[in-house]
Amino acid sequence: MNKNSLLSVQDLSTNDIIHILSDASLFHVSYSDWQLPCSKALVANLFFEASTRTHYSFESAELQLGCKVADILTSASSVTKGETLYDTIKTLEAVGYNAVVIRHPRDEYYKELEGINIPILNAGDGKGNHPTQCLLDLLTMQQEFGTLKGLNVLICGDIDHSRVAASNKTALEEFGSTVRFCGPKEWEREGYETVDFDEALPQADVVMMLRIQKERGAAMHGLSDVEYLQQYGLTKERYKRMKETAIIMHPAPVNRGVEIDTELVETPKSRIFKQMSNGVLVRKAVIKRAFGYASFEEKKG
Amino acid sequence: MNKNSLLSVQDLSTNDIIHILSDASLFHVSYSDWQLPCSKALVANLFFEASTRTHYSFESAELQLGCKVADILTSASSVTKGETLYDTIKTLEAVGYNAVVIRHPRDEYYKELEGINIPILNAGDGKGNHPTQCLLDLLTMQQEFGTLKGLNVLICGDIDHSRVAASNKTALEEFGSTVRFCGPKEWEREGYETVDFDEALPQADVVMMLRIQKERGAAMHGLSDVEYLQQYGLTKERYKRMKETAIIMHPAPVNRGVEIDTELVETPKSRIFKQMSNGVLVRKAVIKRAFGYASFEEKKG
Amino acid sequence: MNKNSLLSVQDLSTNDIIHILSDASLFHVSYSDWQLPCSKALVANLFFEASTRTHYSFESAELQLGCKVADILTSASSVTKGETLYDTIKTLEAVGYNAVVIRHPRDEYYKELEGINIPILNAGDGKGNHPTQCLLDLLTMQQEFGTLKGLNVLICGDIDHSRVAASNKTALEEFGSTVRFCGPKEWEREGYETVDFDEALPQADVVMMLRIQKERGAAMHGLSDVEYLQQYGLTKERYKRMKETAIIMHPAPVNRGVEIDTELVETPKSRIFKQMSNGVLVRKAVIKRAFGYASFEEKKG
Repeated sequence: MNKNSLLSVQDLSTNDIIHILSDASLFHVSYSDWQLPCSKALVANLFFEASTRTHYSFESAELQLGCKVADILTSASSVTKGETLYDTIKTLEAVGYNAVVIRHPRDEYYKELEGINIPILNAGDGKGNHPTQCLLDLLTMQQEFGTLKGLNVLICGDIDHSRVAASNKTALEEFGSTVRFCGPKEWEREGYETVDFDEALPQADVVMMLRIQKERGAAMHGLSDVEYLQQYGLTKERYKRMKETAIIMHPAPVNRGVEIDTELVETPKSRIFKQMSNGVLVRKAVIKRAFGYASFEEKKG
Repeated sequence: MNKNSLLSVQDLSTNDIIHILSDASLFHVSYSDWQLPCSKALVANLFFEASTRTHYSFESAELQLGCKVADILTSASSVTKGETLYDTIKTLEAVGYNAVVIRHPRDEYYKELEGINIPILNAGDGKGNHPTQCLLDLLTMQQEFGTLKGLNVLICGDIDHSRVAASNKTALEEFGSTVRFCGPKEWEREGYETVDFDEALPQADVVMMLRIQKERGAAMHGLSDVEYLQQYGLTKERYKRMKETAIIMHPAPVNRGVEIDTELVETPKSRIFKQMSNGVLVRKAVIKRAFGYASFEEKKG
Repeated sequence: MNKNSLLSVQDLSTNDIIHILSDASLFHVSYSDWQLPCSKALVANLFFEASTRTHYSFESAELQLGCKVADILTSASSVTKGETLYDTIKTLEAVGYNAVVIRHPRDEYYKELEGINIPILNAGDGKGNHPTQCLLDLLTMQQEFGTLKGLNVLICGDIDHSRVAASNKTALEEFGSTVRFCGPKEWEREGYETVDFDEALPQADVVMMLRIQKERGAAMHGLSDVEYLQQYGLTKERYKRMKETAIIMHPAPVNRGVEIDTELVETPKSRIFKQMSNGVLVRKAVIKRAFGYASFEEKKG
C-alpha cells in the first residue's frame, strides 16, 4: 500500500490533519489558482455507488490541479464479469494510472488492496469511513471559529448509520472539542453521549444535521416527513434559539423538509454549500499529498 | 440567473442571434482553430435524456475551446437519492464548475434554477426549447442563402411534438422568412399554417423533415414505415421536384426509410451532416457568450 | 475508410506489425514520456460491451499522448433511438472528432462503416478481431525472447470462442513460430492443431491460458471450477514442469481458480500484468499510426 494513500481519518495523525487543512486553505475553489502542478498525472475515479457531491468535487479538484481524469464506468467494467476489485485496480496501475479514487459499498474494501502500489484515495466505504468528508467538516469549523479546540458540536439524526458522525467524533475529540448527539432513540449508538435536542441547542457552536439515508433502507420509525421535522429536525422555531455565532452544517444531499426546513438551507447561519466548496479544497490538498509534497513543490518551481 | 445563460431562442433579441451566428461562422469544426481561450473553465454536462448529437457536439465544442469537461452520470448521481435539480446544480456551482449544459425531460426545468449564478446552457427541455438546434438551423440557412430574409421554408412531419418546428417558426418569421407546415392531420398545430406537401414542395428553399419521435410515444396512426414515407416522407420522386437551389434539412437522428428515403441522407442537396458540423460552431459561440465576450477577448490577447 | 484505420491483424503486413511493435517499445507506460504530440486531436471511445482493460488502456494511451477524450455513453446515446452505427459514427465525424475507438458485439461491424473518413480503431468485434490484444501479445513475446521466430506457443482453453486464439495463430505462424492448442474436446476448432496439455507443457516457451467467457454463455460442460482447473487449467503442479525460461500469458480478466491457480497470477513466470502495460504501449503506437506518422513527427519537432 502506498504510504500517501488516504483510507480513514483514524490513520492520520493530528499533525497530518493540520498539514492537510493548512494546505487546503491555500487553495481556491475556482480556477483562479490553476497551477497545473499535476499535469502529468492520470487519475481514475471508481464510484461503485451513486454520488454527485463527492464524485464531481474530486473531479473538479483533479481537473483544476491539471490531472488527466478517467471516470471508470463501474457498471460497464470487467467487474461485471466477476473480476476481483484487486485485479481491477492492479489493471489500472498496470496501464498507467497514477492514483485511484474509490467509493465502494463494502466496509474497508481497501483491506484487499494491500498489493497496490499507487495511492488510493478513499471516497467512502460502506458505513465505515469517508475521510475527505470529515476533513471538509473540520476545515469549515476551523474557518469559522479559528480553532478546533473547545467547540461544542451537536450532531443530530441517524447516528447509528452515519460515517460522518463516527469520524467527526473521533477527530473533534482529539482536537479538544465536545461532540454530543441527539435523534430518535432507535438510532442511538453505544459510546455516543445522547442529549435532548431542545436543551442542548442553545449552547451549540455547530449544529450538524445528518441525512436520513432512505436509499440505505433507513426507516423513519413510523413518522411522516413533517412529524420527523417537528420532533428531530431543524425547524425555523429551533433556528431562532441557536447561538448568534452558531452555524448549521449538513453532509448533503439534504432531504428538504425532513431533517431541515427547506428555507434554512441557505440562511446566513447555514454553511451547507460552503462545506461543498471546502470539499474541493480538501480534496486538492489530499491529491497533493498523494503525489508527495516534494515532487509537488518541484513541479511548481 | 446568470445573464449569459441561454434558455430559449425567445429570450434572444435579433441582434443577439446575429451576433452568435457571426461568431459561429468564425470558428471551424475541427481543431485547426484550437485557441484554448477557455483553458481555465470547468464545464459540467448533465444529460437526463439520451442524446448523441447534442451531447457530444457540446463536448467537442468545449474540448476544442480548451475547457475541462466533466460528464455527470445522471443515472448515478444524487438525483437518484431524491435531490432536487436546484440542489444538484447549486452543488456543481459550489464545487467549482463555471458553467453547466443541461438536457432535461421536464418543460422549462430552468425556471426552478433562478438562484444559480453560473451560466446555464439549455440543451433541450421536454417538448419546449432547444435553442442551439434552432441556432444551427439558422446558421445552415444563412450559409446557404446569405440571408435569413425572404426564405420559403417548409417543415414536414410531427409538428405538434416538435421543439424544432416551434422555435424555427418564431425565429425565421422574425427575420422575415415564410414558414409553412405539412404532415398527417393528427399532428397539425393551431396557429401553424398547413399546406399540401406536394403542392408546396416546388416553391420551397428549405425542406426540413422532422424526426418521428417513436421513443416519445409518437404513433404513426396505423401507417407502416413504407406507407408513411409514400404519403408524408421525402421520396426520391419528390426529391426530383425540388427547386435546383433548395436544400434538405433534418434535426436527426434520422429514421431512414420513414421520414426520408435512406439514399437521400447524403445526396448533394442534403445538409443533414452539415447541420451537425454547424452545431459545433454554434455551441462554441454560445460557450464564448456564456463566459462573457470581454473576458474571452482578454484571454485570447 | 481511412487507410490508417486498424480493423484486424489480418489487414496488417508483417512490416506494418514490425513497425508498430518497434514504435510501441519506444514508449513508456507512465507519463514519463508525456510528449503531447496529439494535443489537437479529439478521440471518441465507443464501448458497446463491458471492458475495463481495453477501454481504460486506450484511454490512458490517449490521455498520455495529449488527446482530448470523450467517452460516449453507448447506453444513453441515440443508438437507443434506433440510429444506425454508421449514422452515429458519421455524426461524431461531423462534430469534429478525429478518430474513434470502437468495441462492438457484432462481428465485423466495421464493414458498414466504409463511408467514414476518420480512422477507426477496432477494440474488439464479436468473436472476430481484437487487433491490439494480438499486438500486445506479440510485443510481450518479443520483449521476452528477442524474436517472434521459432517460438513454441501453447494456447489452452476455449479455443472455439476465442478471438485471441485465432489472431495469435495467424500472426505467430507468419513470423515462423509454432502454435498449438489444448483444452476440452468440445472447444476444439477445425484447422487448429490439438495436443495433450501435460505432454506439450515442458516444451512450451509460452503458455497462454484463455479466459472462460462465462458472460458469453460459455458452459464448462458439467465441470466445477476445481475440476476444470485440475483437468485443463494451470495448476501449481503443472507450473513446476514448465521450462525455466517459459512465461505465462493470459488476456485477462482472469477467472482465478478456474483456468489458473490464483497464486500463479503474480508469480515470476507470469507476464499477465506486463501484458496490460504493453497494451498501453501498443495502443499509443496504433494511435500514432492513426494520425499518420508524418504529421506526428512534425508535431514533435
